[in-house]
Amino acid sequence: MSTRYKIKISYDGTNYSGWQVQPHHRTVQGELERLLAEMTSQKHVRVESSGRTDTGVHARAQIAHFDLNQPLSDPKYFQRGLNAQLDRDIRVLTFDKISSDFHARFSAVGKEYRYFIYNGLIVPPTKRLYRLQEGRPLDVDRMRAAAALLAGEHDFAPFAANRKVPIKDTVRTIHSFYVRKHGSDVTLEVQGNGFLYKMVRGLAGFLIEVGRGRLEPESVVDILDSGIRTAVVPTARPHGLFLWKVFY
Amino acid sequence: MSTRYKIKISYDGTNYSGWQVQPHHRTVQGELERLLAEMTSQKHVRVESSGRTDTGVHARAQIAHFDLNQPLSDPKYFQRGLNAQLDRDIRVLTFDKISSDFHARFSAVGKEYRYFIYNGLIVPPTKRLYRLQEGRPLDVDRMRAAAALLAGEHDFAPFAANRKVPIKDTVRTIHSFYVRKHGSDVTLEVQGNGFLYKMVRGLAGFLIEVGRGRLEPESVVDILDSGIRTAVVPTARPHGLFLWKVFY
Repeated sequence: MSTRYKIKISYDGTNYSGWQVQPHHRTVQGELERLLAEMTSQKHVRVESSGRTDTGVHARAQIAHFDLNQPLSDPKYFQRGLNAQLDRDIRVLTFDKISSDFHARFSAVGKEYRYFIYNGLIVPPTKRLYRLQEGRPLDVDRMRAAAALLAGEHDFAPFAANRKVPIKDTVRTIHSFYVRKHGSDVTLEVQGNGFLYKMVRGLAGFLIEVGRGRLEPESVVDILDSGIRTAVVPTARPHGLFLWKVFY
Repeated sequence: MSTRYKIKISYDGTNYSGWQVQPHHRTVQGELERLLAEMTSQKHVRVESSGRTDTGVHARAQIAHFDLNQPLSDPKYFQRGLNAQLDRDIRVLTFDKISSDFHARFSAVGKEYRYFIYNGLIVPPTKRLYRLQEGRPLDVDRMRAAAALLAGEHDFAPFAANRKVPIKDTVRTIHSFYVRKHGSDVTLEVQGNGFLYKMVRGLAGFLIEVGRGRLEPESVVDILDSGIRTAVVPTARPHGLFLWKVFY
């Protein structure tokens, strides 16, 4: 009978090939699984997150769970030990025992992502790892109009990456989609019940095209109706994308 | 007859041994001087800043000047070329011809520094390079009381590093000293007509002691009266310190 633990983790994705374990690559899941196995003397600890993040994507608050054969006598103490061994670009923020009914991915009912865009010619050096740069002026009102049309329940396949093996259900609901501007920083804040593979990067790529004046906000309607991904929707680079919150 | 140029630069100090050229170390001044010499075919270009910054200290806006034997036909074009060759942790924000009366250091009439403190046990990974961590709770009101006593004209030798060769005049004026709190971020904003070597780090180290309750705000008076640096005033680590603005 194993014991399940839930952790909230934050990471700077700059030096990782994303979340998911891959041979010969440094990944967040790989680092956590390696250290948990070392610290528990368990042969393998499988760490399941709410979903993978791409190379270079950051997480303010990712949620994950894993099972240990032996319960920990003091999870808080174990958490400190784990943080002491992790590089400072991954931090375990909370560490709790949880019912084995809980599943980081399947129990999630929604997520929030934030995309931080620097709308200017020269990104300040201390922000360079945490902003998507867009040098051409963005019209935030146009972006807001498009974001409003994206909110709601839609088949978002036209904004997601094409999969080799198509998935059946590509209908998702965007609960809210805000575009905020503060000086040269333009931030996209999107909450939904789930996101398809690379959908957030497709949404951001599209909104930037709208902001630059290359697409009309109303083109959302035709793109959604088309049902398929086209070159009209670019995939924004991952810099500046944060998994902000997972809802349960 | 040479031509003088003034540049505003921003840098992430993480990967540099501070501003000042040192043999076998990567420094901001060293990088700029090397590239300027390469790009102008001038044997040596001496870049003079408003003042050096320590290892790991960042600059939102440092000012520097240098002289070129041949005037540039297009400084803006040259600026883009320079930025293209610099690593992205140094950016030249502005690049202008200026009178040879101007001197980045001697013409400066004041400076602003900001110290970003993360007052919590776990620094978010994406902030780790830009915050000084303080895990013990800081009482911001006490820090504000001490900062108010530090404002004004004083002999700040007790807050600066001791020099092998003592400098004559250690009297400086702090025009304003704010302590701001936003969630776990505590920010010190200090403006003055000049700062002695490591004085900002001494002021921050002292204010943190006051915030932790180990020193009273009123101890400012005795420390200033003493005229000498003592172990009572620790030097805060450089992480989180930004040269924010130089006034002319």
